[in-house]
This record gives sequence, structure tokens and C-alpha cells, in this order.
Amino acid sequence: MSPTITAFKASPDRGRGLARDMRVRWALEEVGQAYDVRLLTFAEMKEPAHLGLQPFGQIPTYEDGDLVLFESGAIVLHIAERHAGLLPGDANAGARAIAWMFAALGTIEPPIVERSMATLVERDKPWYAQRLPMLEDRVRARLGELSRRLGEADWLDGAFSAGDLLMVSVLLRLGGSGLLDDYPNLCAYIARAEARPAYRRAFAAQLAVFTAASSGG
Amino acid sequence: MSPTITAFKASPDRGRGLARDMRVRWALEEVGQAYDVRLLTFAEMKEPAHLGLQPFGQIPTYEDGDLVLFESGAIVLHIAERHAGLLPGDANAGARAIAWMFAALGTIEPPIVERSMATLVERDKPWYAQRLPMLEDRVRARLGELSRRLGEADWLDGAFSAGDLLMVSVLLRLGGSGLLDDYPNLCAYIARAEARPAYRRAFAAQLAVFTAASSGG
Repeated sequence: MSPTITAFKASPDRGRGLARDMRVRWALEEVGQAYDVRLLTFAEMKEPAHLGLQPFGQIPTYEDGDLVLFESGAIVLHIAERHAGLLPGDANAGARAIAWMFAALGTIEPPIVERSMATLVERDKPWYAQRLPMLEDRVRARLGELSRRLGEADWLDGAFSAGDLLMVSVLLRLGGSGLLDDYPNLCAYIARAEARPAYRRAFAAQLAVFTAASSGG
Repeated sequence: MSPTITAFKASPDRGRGLARDMRVRWALEEVGQAYDVRLLTFAEMKEPAHLGLQPFGQIPTYEDGDLVLFESGAIVLHIAERHAGLLPGDANAGARAIAWMFAALGTIEPPIVERSMATLVERDKPWYAQRLPMLEDRVRARLGELSRRLGEADWLDGAFSAGDLLMVSVLLRLGGSGLLDDYPNLCAYIARAEARPAYRRAFAAQLAVFTAASSGG
């Protein structure tokens, strides 16, 4: 039996690979684990059947036999711990890779999401022009710190890990913002990750959902 | 050798136990692991010596022999995986506890921090009165979902776990906001956690740092 994940039936990102199912698809592709996908509408995500699996009414979830998981970070970690390829074998290096997972989701992603939310929800507000630079400064502060730590290395700590997978997934949300332009080493880091065959397979799979939904009218 | 953690020499929360070292102290107390503390000023946190340990210039860090970790979630998970008491023995239940850890830090904490930041940084701005209700609605939406999932249970998923430890740590940041008042089951959940001897020992330890710093004037 393959695990089943959930994803948007009509992703609000229009197939750009920014929805959080992409992280789980990518992890599954990295370790070579086949999976099934159950697509949900926004209305279905808020129904009791899905809330029983995901208390916040979001995607993705992960079901494998008796196990039901939510939170993309926890799902990626679960996959990484049960297959080779996403966590180093050395225990200390493994703990450090997990630290980068938490850093991606807890330190880097929140200011990025806060900025994105403002561009979506507050664009027409009178304060938008004043607040946006403040939000962008918060993102830049984190990008500068991350860029300094990465330096000229290929990945954050030795070989590619689940920490890089989540960090790149989070940084990709800045596409089109121009905020990455000042950090060529972060741009190269993202490009290196996007060139991975597993990333490309995962991206194609989520894009196919969008394309099918669009052509299905 | 005991592990060494870092904490604020002068915590901005004035000993209320809201700084992120508290989560690590609490975890160490739950599993009965002694630890040392190195206190840092804000200036020291931004110096190269600390940035080598913590790329974002924050506390806490965790040093144990050759291992250096950052991110309170990763540190708590590391402690939980190496000692009994913070993760259930059953593998599926363990994975679910880790999902609650990620939910605490990735889903519940960001809107709480966003609201707190606004009350600190934007209180004097002309838009504050209009934005605050929007930020509080975002927090309430998450609290409502969490309250429904918790129901009448003592803890989020079976026995007390590292997921509860992080979730309560995050909810405590709402103290004084009034936002928890509509959720008596969440208030009882927090009180249940605060009554744990390990929590009380950790709280006393961080308060002693503040008291010593104040009286040292």
C-alpha cells in the first residue's frame, strides 16, 4: 500500500508548486516512495471528514495504514526517518538537518508568509505603502543571515537533506518579489535544488493537477 | 557532561517565562537531564562567536559535546528522542506528537507573534486600531480549531508529549491578551501544564536569572 496525501483540487498558486503538498511530493520522490493523491476543494477541506484528519482544515495530510499525519514539516520528517536519502546517517548531522527543518518553517517562512498575506489582503489599504517596506526588511534580515551561513556551500550542512528541501520550498515563495536578487548564493542554492530530478518529478505532478483542472473547465 | 544552553542575560519578558529557552529548560526538566546555562546580552547574540552557533543571532542554543543545535523545536525534539517521557513509545503516536510540535511552531505561533509584534512596534501607527482586530481574528480562528480538537481531553493526543510542551509554550504568549478567555478548555489545558513539577522548576530557573539581573542592578 502506498501512502495517500491530500492536495488542492484547484491550487490558489495556479500550479507554481508553492502549495504545501509540493514539499511532501518532493520528499516522497527523493526517497523513491510511490504515493496516491486525494484532491480536495476548499469546501471539502472545512468539512468534518477532513477536519478529523487535519484540525486546521488545510492540506497536505498523509495517511499510511493506521497513521494519519498533518503539518508538512512533520510529514517530511516522518518520510526522512523511514527512508534513506533525506537525513544523514550520523546522529549529530541528522539532528542538525532537523534544526534546519525547524528553521525553515519557524524562522524563515513566517516573515515571508506575513509579507505575502499583506500583498494579498492589504494591498488596497491606506497603510500598505508604509508597511510593505517594514515587512520586506524583516524578510531581508533573515535572508542576509541565511546567505552568510550558506556562503559558497552547495547545501546548508553537508549533503542535501530534508532541511534543504524545506528551506528551498520556503524561499521559492519569494519568487517574483525581487527580494532574493541581492543574494546570488541563495538564488544558486534554489536553482541547484530545482534541478534535482526528484524536485522536477514532484513539480510536474502538482502541475498536472492544475492543468487537468483547467482543461476540464 | 551536562549540555549547555544559552538564554538572555536580561530577558525582554522580565522573567515571565516567554523566552524560547524556557521550552528547552522545561523539556530538560521533564526528562530529568541537568544542564548548564550561558547567559548572553543582546550585543553578544549578534557577535561572530554566537552567530557561529546560531546563524540568526537568537537564543536558545544547545551544546552537548560535539553537537551544536539551534531552533527550540529541534532542541526539544532532540531531547525527546534521547530520553523517555516526551514522546510516546508507539511509532505512530510518536509521529503524531511530532506533528503537534510542528503545528505549535508553524501554525499556531506565527499569528500570535504577528499580533505581539504589532502591539510592540505599531501601537502608535495610525492603522493600529484597524489592523489589530484583523490580527486577533487570525489568532482566534486557530484557537477555535485547536479548542475543538482538544475537546475535553487532558492533552492533544494521549499522554503529555513534546507536542503539548510546545503548544502550551506558544499559547502562554497570549497571556494578558484576553484572547484565550473564550476557550475554557484551552485555559484548563495551559493550567494543567503549568502545574507540572517540571514546568515549575524550569519557570523558577529562568525567573532566578531575571531576579539576579535586576538585583545586581
